[in-house]
Amino acid sequence: MTRPLIFITNDDGVCARGLEAIVGVARKFGDVVVIAPEVSHSGGAHAITMYNPLYLRTVHKEDGLEVYACSGTPVDCVKMAFDHLLIARKPDLTISGINHGSNSAISVLYSGTMGAAIEASFYGAPSVGFSLTDHSADADFGDSERVAEVIIRKLLEGPVELPLCLNVNIPHEQEVKGIRVCRQSKGYWKETFVERKDPRGREYFWLTGSLLNDEPNAEDTDEWALCHGYASVVPIQIDLTDHLRLSYLNDLLKGR
Amino acid sequence: MTRPLIFITNDDGVCARGLEAIVGVARKFGDVVVIAPEVSHSGGAHAITMYNPLYLRTVHKEDGLEVYACSGTPVDCVKMAFDHLLIARKPDLTISGINHGSNSAISVLYSGTMGAAIEASFYGAPSVGFSLTDHSADADFGDSERVAEVIIRKLLEGPVELPLCLNVNIPHEQEVKGIRVCRQSKGYWKETFVERKDPRGREYFWLTGSLLNDEPNAEDTDEWALCHGYASVVPIQIDLTDHLRLSYLNDLLKGR
Repeated sequence: MTRPLIFITNDDGVCARGLEAIVGVARKFGDVVVIAPEVSHSGGAHAITMYNPLYLRTVHKEDGLEVYACSGTPVDCVKMAFDHLLIARKPDLTISGINHGSNSAISVLYSGTMGAAIEASFYGAPSVGFSLTDHSADADFGDSERVAEVIIRKLLEGPVELPLCLNVNIPHEQEVKGIRVCRQSKGYWKETFVERKDPRGREYFWLTGSLLNDEPNAEDTDEWALCHGYASVVPIQIDLTDHLRLSYLNDLLKGR
Repeated sequence: MTRPLIFITNDDGVCARGLEAIVGVARKFGDVVVIAPEVSHSGGAHAITMYNPLYLRTVHKEDGLEVYACSGTPVDCVKMAFDHLLIARKPDLTISGINHGSNSAISVLYSGTMGAAIEASFYGAPSVGFSLTDHSADADFGDSERVAEVIIRKLLEGPVELPLCLNVNIPHEQEVKGIRVCRQSKGYWKETFVERKDPRGREYFWLTGSLLNDEPNAEDTDEWALCHGYASVVPIQIDLTDHLRLSYLNDLLKGR
């Protein structure tokens, strides 16, 4: 029997430890092909490269593992995999991550990790983004690997209703108590611009901020799960239509 | 009475003709502040700048109009406006565009224009992204200006239920028949990678593709409206949770 083919990407770049961690887990289940960005695209969302050429560099090849670096974004990496490199042998599963930092709540919109996972779900196999709520380069991915192993096994055992895209976040401040299926928590990022002067005297800014959770006590949300020691799993869909506002909007624009 | 303050950004950059066109329309209604990216971020989605400093350059100031260029993404421009430059006087409306090229259907996910419009809707005033289905630099924005004028008037007259974010697309191949409130059409981009060699002999790729419409006959969709000569207006929400799959996913992960 052919081993499953697992395609892996991320947004922290081809050298990130979180990528190394998930490749180790995925190889227990199947052959692995990685296409990851050359450099970090943290906060890169669903961006694609329209006005620059894309280069693909072979990083490593051995039995059951191929690693490539792409000059583009995480979503470019996914398109490069499904519409170019892996046309002959379609992946059975796409994994994005393990991200260094949370992608819960509204962060899913800004996340390059989830941009790639969402894009991959368009191509006929399940996809999952894993993120650890720890930004540090030397984060401990032990719990994340255990959670990922459980979820990867379920997705590969199948059958799975498609399309399926999962946003999985793993807390890092305590041992993981379990896995909870959640909805995306409501809330927004409040930004603070840190002002500095560069060595030439020009003013510049660092974008910094924090997530404001509008519903900290809602037990069915991903933020609640993470704050209480659970890994959160949110199923993702991509219809942005606000269906409940269609008739309101019709009235508004007709001036009734 | 104080004139409304209208904040404008885009993803084609501060020099784009579509920006100039919408500034002309907006000035009929109020004072205008523009913060637009220095360069094109077409396809830039909801990306933010995390590992580079942001510069803000004053391009132009006159009575009722201030124009700035930002070194970051469209979403950075919005955050720079609401969390830095315009803290003392909050905008009454945000406009993103007019984009050179369609942002209908699933293109909303990739769109820097709509990334900015969505971000702006988090700050307590309505927002709208305008896109013309013509990529060319010298596109004719006449119809777009007329559609924008109708919608801007309605949004400023109010009252408007918040949050409100609109994805407005205007067809270019025929005279606009009217404005239709729509849902986002289902479908995906199918990519083709054009392979080339650079002058140093290295292989590179251009990402090119086309939108595959899964439901060309669905009259309530934005793609149908555009194909039939109407401007489409889709109300946008940002909960990506696939609520209908929550219990399915619970079963899947518990192995029942």
